[in-house]
Amino acid sequence: MAQNIYDDPGFFAGYSQLPRQVHGLPGAPEWPAIRAMLPDLAGKHVVDLGCGFGWVSRWMRAQGASAVRGIDLSQNMIARAEAMTQDPEIVYEIADLETLELPKSTFDLAYSALTFHYIRDFARLARMLYRALVPDGHVVFTIEHPIYMAATHPRWGQDEDGRKSWPVNRYFIEGERRTDWYVKGVLKYHRTIGTTLNALIGAGFALRHVEEFCPTREQIKAMPELTDELERPMMMLVSAQR
Amino acid sequence: MAQNIYDDPGFFAGYSQLPRQVHGLPGAPEWPAIRAMLPDLAGKHVVDLGCGFGWVSRWMRAQGASAVRGIDLSQNMIARAEAMTQDPEIVYEIADLETLELPKSTFDLAYSALTFHYIRDFARLARMLYRALVPDGHVVFTIEHPIYMAATHPRWGQDEDGRKSWPVNRYFIEGERRTDWYVKGVLKYHRTIGTTLNALIGAGFALRHVEEFCPTREQIKAMPELTDELERPMMMLVSAQR
Repeated sequence: MAQNIYDDPGFFAGYSQLPRQVHGLPGAPEWPAIRAMLPDLAGKHVVDLGCGFGWVSRWMRAQGASAVRGIDLSQNMIARAEAMTQDPEIVYEIADLETLELPKSTFDLAYSALTFHYIRDFARLARMLYRALVPDGHVVFTIEHPIYMAATHPRWGQDEDGRKSWPVNRYFIEGERRTDWYVKGVLKYHRTIGTTLNALIGAGFALRHVEEFCPTREQIKAMPELTDELERPMMMLVSAQR
Repeated sequence: MAQNIYDDPGFFAGYSQLPRQVHGLPGAPEWPAIRAMLPDLAGKHVVDLGCGFGWVSRWMRAQGASAVRGIDLSQNMIARAEAMTQDPEIVYEIADLETLELPKSTFDLAYSALTFHYIRDFARLARMLYRALVPDGHVVFTIEHPIYMAATHPRWGQDEDGRKSWPVNRYFIEGERRTDWYVKGVLKYHRTIGTTLNALIGAGFALRHVEEFCPTREQIKAMPELTDELERPMMMLVSAQR
């Protein structure tokens, strides 16, 4: 079973105050890039994996998705998501993506934001998603970028010119990474870029777009702290099609 | 026109002594990984882009390729390559990949080793290669990994535990990178992983395999200095199909 930090009270208290949880999609600077990668949602059956508070699930319904199934491991998250909607076509469910089996040939889109790096067996998940999508269906997801999470001590340093610099080591040593984020020892799984992309290709997907989140000029002007995000990739955004 | 360091006498003298130039393919630790990505070569028409001394061009003929066209910007390299073969089905040619136009629907395989990171306009090259391949034809290439070449000062440092660590900065500032390698100011072009992969997808290619070169246990046992290559990706290997 995937680690469930989201039901740890200390974690949840801090996490709930993140701009993206308080403000929803406008609080996530990568959202415009994700949105540009999504297919037209009108009439589509969507599954939102690691749906959290359901910001995207609700947005997709507002865009015309016919039904959205939001899945999360956390009781806290699902309870909050359920409290935020009256829509009978949004159904939330507590489940573990490590073992989840979705019904076959059912969904037009599988979406996931910043969740799959918590999953130990991504190849299994990719194969399951392939089966769960209808032909030509899409999977669109974001993960922490492998470069962001590879190192033993993933935090800013400086180069000899005083420029911020991100350390990379242990890149080819895949597997568990532990970091402190509101609580100690948050468990993530590092995979190389090749491993992630080849798992999708191996499952039968055609890769449609691979993007590494970079803030726009306008975003940096509005939030100067995003300047650092030009130095190293923090997130990888992937679109693939069955 | 791409920078031609290979015809600089100082560069050529040093470069010619690299294990991979002296010993050919056995001197390149990534070769087994590349070889595993190549399609069957029997009867295939191949273009070898940045062929250098022609080690791979000759190997492909030995594997049954019907004809190989080796292309390089460097007179020195092509002269040496020509001196090393009598095979009339291997034709070498001096040309600049920035402007090269190959005949349409001609090649079964376009191969390139550690050359495309010298090319400014990769999207143009990808579109040209797509046209030059026959349907179902492959492009297989290696480049310096963007993580390896992004930083202003791309060289080993240490983390707080004394572990080797590779610096990343300027990742999203694409374009020229200058490094000293036998000569000063060798010019390379940094692109994000997304930019490279999306250029291929945009040209019409289906990505078949993306690998980041990692030495095997056996290679590390034979050459302990390769241990460092576990820390950060130095090369990216890509296979795509028309």
